[in-house]
Parts: sequence; structure tokens; C-alpha cells
Amino acid sequence: MPTEKATQVNALVFNQTLRLDAKYPDPSPREDEALIEVHLAGICATDIEITKGYMSYEGVLGHEFVGTVVRGSRRWRGRRVTAEINCVCGKCDMCQQGLANHCRKRSVIGISGRDGCFAQFIAVPERNLHEVPGAISDEQAVFIEPLAAAYQVVKQCPIEKRTRVAVIGSGRLALLVAQVLRTTGCRLEVVGRNEHTLDFCEKKGIQTISLSDLVPRADRDVVVDCSGNPDGFETAMRLVRPRGTLVLKSTCAAGTRINLAPVAVNEITVLGSRCGPFPDAIGALARRDIDVESMVSRQLPLARGVEAFELASDPRYIKILLKVKG
Amino acid sequence: MPTEKATQVNALVFNQTLRLDAKYPDPSPREDEALIEVHLAGICATDIEITKGYMSYEGVLGHEFVGTVVRGSRRWRGRRVTAEINCVCGKCDMCQQGLANHCRKRSVIGISGRDGCFAQFIAVPERNLHEVPGAISDEQAVFIEPLAAAYQVVKQCPIEKRTRVAVIGSGRLALLVAQVLRTTGCRLEVVGRNEHTLDFCEKKGIQTISLSDLVPRADRDVVVDCSGNPDGFETAMRLVRPRGTLVLKSTCAAGTRINLAPVAVNEITVLGSRCGPFPDAIGALARRDIDVESMVSRQLPLARGVEAFELASDPRYIKILLKVKG
Repeated sequence: MPTEKATQVNALVFNQTLRLDAKYPDPSPREDEALIEVHLAGICATDIEITKGYMSYEGVLGHEFVGTVVRGSRRWRGRRVTAEINCVCGKCDMCQQGLANHCRKRSVIGISGRDGCFAQFIAVPERNLHEVPGAISDEQAVFIEPLAAAYQVVKQCPIEKRTRVAVIGSGRLALLVAQVLRTTGCRLEVVGRNEHTLDFCEKKGIQTISLSDLVPRADRDVVVDCSGNPDGFETAMRLVRPRGTLVLKSTCAAGTRINLAPVAVNEITVLGSRCGPFPDAIGALARRDIDVESMVSRQLPLARGVEAFELASDPRYIKILLKVKG
Repeated sequence: MPTEKATQVNALVFNQTLRLDAKYPDPSPREDEALIEVHLAGICATDIEITKGYMSYEGVLGHEFVGTVVRGSRRWRGRRVTAEINCVCGKCDMCQQGLANHCRKRSVIGISGRDGCFAQFIAVPERNLHEVPGAISDEQAVFIEPLAAAYQVVKQCPIEKRTRVAVIGSGRLALLVAQVLRTTGCRLEVVGRNEHTLDFCEKKGIQTISLSDLVPRADRDVVVDCSGNPDGFETAMRLVRPRGTLVLKSTCAAGTRINLAPVAVNEITVLGSRCGPFPDAIGALARRDIDVESMVSRQLPLARGVEAFELASDPRYIKILLKVKG
């Protein structure tokens, strides 16, 4: 807990380069914000993209975390929490239309205009907080934010047992999306290039196709692009059937040369998909519907954050966590 | 009407280059096909794209036409008709699922695997025919196919009076889409670079914005990209609000460098849109809901087809028709 003396904290900061800053200023929460002592945090593909220039962001990285509220209103003080990442104004046209996640003036934790969670303390608007129930461990809780993003796919796109679905990608998000889709009982395949993570799917009984063995045939009702690279969209277009749905979860810094004519000719619906419903993710983890623990490859202390980013970019590892407290 | 002697016809053929062939073989309709003597045909952006390599098509160009059935079943003989462009197998998974326009084995009139209508005669499956009512002139009737494609936008995407809609493009299709959208009473703007065609909109009471004056603000509920060029999609992404809908009508031969991240971040729905409902277009023309006659800039005889293509590519003209008969 910050005291008069502890006005500087350890933080993993991106500012042209990624570095550990042992003297980063202690966050000063506004009146509507809580100060949270971070326990554990997760490194996500978006964090890695940011270090390549995505969002032109500078500051403390990280948006997946669990921690304890050390300062804030009585409702929240002492609670173990995680937080939604979009910090909103409540007044703009988007907020007024119930689309607060798209607030025109939003800051986004560790992504845009607001320091993230790879630090000892983080300040977050109390309206963004979700309490983490006792049934969910810290290791699980850091997955609430990305798992919510995975649940968004089934919120946006109705999936039935007979729906033929392909997930493109074999990274962290793809594994979460695949697990969420598996709960629907649909006809599911994961298409990726990473044999390590495809193995993870196979062990869960999810059918996989190595990208190099893929026979492109446009007969999947729904294709979810979680590839995180621009080629994934082209692969997805080759697999989705005419009048099918392509869910785009990937955000990449790089553009690519894409011919969108097949989208028009085959009358494909492309659904952009970003953040998702925290309550669904919290419920699923509490019920143990989704296995996230076996996705954790390594836990490193915050002080080894730069090394942790290198591991998180290594295809042999799935999820790298940063142990911030203890 | 083809006789024993007339076994060769005039046809505008693309085969690496565009040329008039005075000795093109007379079409030989199959049992389920009608032979139609073409009266009048329209040159469309897709025809021009094909001459740039789109679809790698070779053969008689053209898919917008009106003509008289000169050979076929009693139901159709002597009727003035136009035709849907997708010629389908009726047996594949798409046909069986009621998505015959996406038939796996389809040929498409003048676009893929089947000669088009820029010729004295064309053979078309009778199931593709629509009778043109007497209330619709030949000049109007050639617009049935593209107008149907324009009606597809309002079939796919619900538009209400309060819906804020932008149409990107100032070509032929954009003018049809804009006119269809205007019938909904929505808040409509057309964004384009062609002052001649924007004038056409203004005369119809449709608000226009010159592309050079455009202030990009992502606040339109629906944006329809009819630009026919790859930059149109980027412009559309800049105008559509978060969680809004981008209808993609453009098909271009060229790919472009696109960063699709905004689609994911802003959770945009992209609807690919191609062919549309002929009955809606026929009804609208018969009721005079849509003015197509004043879109006709010039009518040239088929023999001047190559020149007609040049005019159709000239931004000073809107629609160029080919007079095939008489």
C-alpha cells in the first residue's frame, strides 16, 4: 500500500523501448477511481503489438490483471478485483447510446491515454471494477478480460450445434475463443501454424488443422480470425461459405494488401469484435467451464518484465504472467 | 431472329482486348434455355473492371439487358424480358440451402463462364427470366439488374428514418443506391469525387459532399461503399460509427493496403452485397419511384461498342447504353 514514502513504484514502461522503471511515479487516483495493488498480470498480443508501434501508446503497459483495492470507496476497499479496460466519459453520443465501450473520449488501460497494470499500483475508475469471486484463483482471474473478449464472439454471432465453425490462429486468444465455442457443441476446427498450441486443443478434444495442411474450401458457416496477423483474414475469407460470417478479432499494427472483392461477391458478413462481457467470463471460470490454468506457461516477477515479453513472443509458450506482488 | 443463314452475329468480345467481332458464333441454347434477341444493354463498372482483368473472363461482355424471347418454351416465347445473371446448377450445397445466387458451379452472364448480352442474341436459362411489364421502357429495363443490386442494400440492412447513411461513390451504382435509400426517408448523404454525378443527386434533393471537402467523423450508422475503388473502403471506415454497418458493394480487380484493425476496434459490421431482388427493382421502375432515364448519357449502336466503353469510363457521363436492335 502506498505510503508517504512510497511515491515511486516499479513499472514496465513502453516509451520507444520497453524497460523497467524503478522510479515510476505512484498513480494518483481521481475521486471516482480506486487504487489497486496488482497481484498478477497477463501479457497479451496487444501488449506485444504496442511495442511494435500499435496505437502509438507510451506509458505503463498491461490491461489483464487481478489485484486488491487499497484505496477507494467503502464498496470496493479490500476487494479482490479485475477491471474493464475502457474508461469512459458517460456523456458523448456513444455513451448516451449505450455503447460506452466506444466512448469518443475513452482512455484504455495500458493501451491508450492511461497507464496499465504492469506496475505495483494502478488507478482505475470504480465503475470499471468487477469483484473476483473466491472460487476463481489469481491465475484464472488474469484471464477474465481476454476470456470476456472471447465470449463476445458468441454474443455477436449465434452459434448452434450444427454450425460449422473454424477458428484461425493458435495463439492465446484463439485458444480461449475455441474453448468458448466448444461449450456451444458446434462443429469446431482450429486452424493454426503453432504445433504447441494446436496440441493444447487436441488434448481438449478440439479438432485442429495445421495451416500447412489446409485445403481451402469455402464451407464454414462462421470463421473467427484470431490469428493476430494480416494473412489470417485472407485465410478466413477462403474458408467462410458464401453468406457466412467472418468474425474479426485480430488487431494488427501492419496493414496488408487485401482484395476485399470476395467479401462483396460472396456476400460475407464481417463482424469486428473487441471487448466482451465480464460477467460471462467470470461465471465460466467460477464454473470451471473453461480451462485457463493449463495455458499458463511461466510466471515471472515484474522485475523480469522485459524477459517476460520475449517469452510471450516465443511460440513455444502460451501465456506468460507477471507476478507483481509477493 | 436467327435463321439458317444467320449463324454468325455481331458481338462485343473481350479476349485480352476488347473488340467487335462481326462473325461471333450464334448462341445455341440448351433445352432449359431461351434465345433472346437483345434490344438494349447497359455498360456497368463490372464490365470495365473485366477489361482490366477482373474475373479473368473472356467472351461476350455484358449482363444488363432487355430483349425479346425468340426461341424457348411457350411460357416465354415473344415476351419482353430481362434476366438474373447467376446461372445455377440447382444441386450443390448452396443451391440446396436456398443460396442459389452462390451456386458452386454457377456461370454468370458476361462475367464468368457464359457469354453476355453485348451481342445480337443471348442464350439464358428460362428460370432466370423476368418479364418486363409494359409500363417499363427499354431504357428503364436495362437498369433492372443494377437497381436490384441497389435494393439488396435495404434488404440486408434495416434503414429507418432516423438512420444516418452515407453512400461513398458517385458512379452509376452509387446513384441507384442513393435513390433507393432516399425512398426510406433516412438521413442521407452521398460522398464522391465526380461533380457531374453529385449534381445529379443535388437535383434529386439528395445531400452531397465532395470527397475533397469531407471531414472524416465516424458518426454515420450505415455507410455504403459503391466507390468501385479500393480507397472507398478506407473512406467508409472513417465515416461509420462504432458498431455501425459498412455495406460493401464494390468489387475491384485491384487489392489495396488496408489496415482492418478499425473494423475490430470499432466493432463494425461489414456486409458484402452483390446481386439483389429483381421484383423490387421492377416494381420500383413501374411505379416510377426511381428515375433511371435521366441517368442515360448516351446510346450507341453495338457496332460502336469499343467507343461506348471509352465513354462509360469517362467521368463526364453517367450511363452508356448499347443499342443492339434497330
